Amino acid sequence: SSAFDPVDHPHRRQNLLNGDWILVSPHRAKRPWQGAQEKPVQPEKVTHDPECYLCPRNERVTGDNNPDYASTYVFPNDFPALMTDTPDAETKDDMFRMSSATGVARVICFSPDHSKTLPQLTSQEIRHVVDTWTAQVEELCDNHAWVQVFENKGAAMGCSNPHPHGQVWATSFLPNEARKENESQTQWLEEKGSCLLLDYALKESASGERTVVENNDWIAVVPWWAAWPFETLLLPKFKVTHLNKLDDSQRDNLAEIIKALTTRYDNLFQTSFPYSMGWHGMPFTDGANEEAWQLHAHFYPPLLRSATVRKFMVGFEMLAELQRDLTPEQAAERLRNLPDQHYLDA
Amino acid sequence: SSAFDPVDHPHRRQNLLNGDWILVSPHRAKRPWQGAQEKPVQPEKVTHDPECYLCPRNERVTGDNNPDYASTYVFPNDFPALMTDTPDAETKDDMFRMSSATGVARVICFSPDHSKTLPQLTSQEIRHVVDTWTAQVEELCDNHAWVQVFENKGAAMGCSNPHPHGQVWATSFLPNEARKENESQTQWLEEKGSCLLLDYALKESASGERTVVENNDWIAVVPWWAAWPFETLLLPKFKVTHLNKLDDSQRDNLAEIIKALTTRYDNLFQTSFPYSMGWHGMPFTDGANEEAWQLHAHFYPPLLRSATVRKFMVGFEMLAELQRDLTPEQAAERLRNLPDQHYLDA
Ligand SMILES: O=P(O)(O)O[C@H]1O[C@H](CO)[C@@H](O)[C@H](O)[C@H]1O
Ligand SMILES: O=P(O)(O)O[C@H]1O[C@H](CO)[C@@H](O)[C@H](O)[C@H]1O
Repeated sequence: SSAFDPVDHPHRRQNLLNGDWILVSPHRAKRPWQGAQEKPVQPEKVTHDPECYLCPRNERVTGDNNPDYASTYVFPNDFPALMTDTPDAETKDDMFRMSSATGVARVICFSPDHSKTLPQLTSQEIRHVVDTWTAQVEELCDNHAWVQVFENKGAAMGCSNPHPHGQVWATSFLPNEARKENESQTQWLEEKGSCLLLDYALKESASGERTVVENNDWIAVVPWWAAWPFETLLLPKFKVTHLNKLDDSQRDNLAEIIKALTTRYDNLFQTSFPYSMGWHGMPFTDGANEEAWQLHAHFYPPLLRSATVRKFMVGFEMLAELQRDLTPEQAAERLRNLPDQHYLDA
Repeated sequence: SSAFDPVDHPHRRQNLLNGDWILVSPHRAKRPWQGAQEKPVQPEKVTHDPECYLCPRNERVTGDNNPDYASTYVFPNDFPALMTDTPDAETKDDMFRMSSATGVARVICFSPDHSKTLPQLTSQEIRHVVDTWTAQVEELCDNHAWVQVFENKGAAMGCSNPHPHGQVWATSFLPNEARKENESQTQWLEEKGSCLLLDYALKESASGERTVVENNDWIAVVPWWAAWPFETLLLPKFKVTHLNKLDDSQRDNLAEIIKALTTRYDNLFQTSFPYSMGWHGMPFTDGANEEAWQLHAHFYPPLLRSATVRKFMVGFEMLAELQRDLTPEQAAERLRNLPDQHYLDA
């Protein structure tokens, strides 16, 4: 019988950030698909849509009018999942464990132009987005345990408005994923005396096998433990705990690599590539360890085979273990080899 | 300022089975929805579809023909995520952790009738499905650490064929969810000297607040820690480790409660209610504790407001913490008050 080959044989890989394993079934990519098809995304044609509650000058559901903003624009989410004035409460019941939660939720418009998405902005415009994220972290870190900056892009990822925008939710508590990443990075520091994600970034940069794009300060890889078909992890190649600690040229290079990565995403299936992305940085709680923590962004895109065929994380995945149909190395190679220029500009 | 009220105020609840917390934002249910709409499901009209590879007598992609089956029918998945003959391999690399995996994947047709779904089968026909699940567990438990019986129902849950069917994937390893539930139940036994989920079932049965349906042997509740809007947990009211240990009348009562629960699901939005469901029972590994483990089924349905508006577990949920927009008690009350008769038969 033949020797083990990761491109042919089912295997599991461990996610070093949350401890979970992922089932990799690369031989399964050949399976035909007869299930649900996503609606192909039609590019937005107008730069200002009178019906859009995110466009400059338009009215929101609260009756407020957006200002005539020219770059980015931040406002409180009109239907926030968190509120600042929730009374304190906690049950000590062993079976019914509960604790009240406070926080803020805001919307971050990336551009006044309704028709654009991140990769279609200039590096300088993306730099404004980076600065806006940074300012939000800087402002919210004082009163919150965790500040979650994120973007849901595309209807497939529950985004209800094509206007380029993200969100920031800041919470009084450490959410699950933050708690797990905190534990893993702290444990790595204790065992190895080094920063897990800095070690990892440098190892990936040296190997190149899972690299999608890289510049002097940053590297985007399909991580060894990727669950979504074209999932990526965006990592600094220097030690830094959060967005608000980046210097000027690190921010410029960040804007540049975000443009390069999201352009490749759009080019893969020649569509506006849906994803959820977001930033993880050191929690603003007493226990957090500065040496252990490294800033990073996760991109979780659902598409698998084409602009209309996605991966479903259902059944076995929900009940047992996440599963993928191609190796992370195969996914990285495909993304890496795509052109640098956005397909709509070509 | 007002006192804490779980129906008005954001709070977190802990899932006792996997340790994670869920953010409950009940005030958010008022939010309007402008995002993606699911396609409403049209009931299948024909009892036999010549194009369906699951219908009796039809040809499958392998060239094999299905038998002219009259009740349930099990066959190997033609595109299995797991294979029996993967060579052994394991990396000891601290950063790139990997282990080969073996297993089997099978498809379980619930009925020869292409037009039916579980709630439209008679209790006696569902009893055949229960017996088929049971026989699969009985057969596969000898050579596997875990046997995952599950059903993906509806295109929204990645199901590629409306013919009523589920799957069974048996694995050489303990998947993540199994590992976590194993730890929680073992820890509860060590701390309290009792079975977590039997304690929980009896407490829910006494309270009734989260009960959807109940009979002499079984109870279906929207658990205290439900993440999906109308998620349920189906629990025995007696101690039992796995499906193959159920006696005759417990199986009859199980068939009956599955019919009652899935009928209410369909009645909620008068549609064929999509979900992923599956069974968890004691692992077939040496470490597993018989006293700690209790058989149970999870139902994870995505719909939130109507037949076409679902909850998206994206952005904040993927990066930080699962979030829901109504309380489990509100969801249970709505399901409980629905008629016992399927809306298509009314
Ligand atoms: O095996 P199926 O039904 O073709 O595929 C479906 O269920 C599998 C098991 O939950 C998932 O891995 C797939 O993503 C999903 O589309
Ligand atoms: O806030 P939005 O964009 O309306 O809503 C979207 O993002 C939220 C945060 O990830 C999710 O809770 C919602 O399910 C999703 O539809």
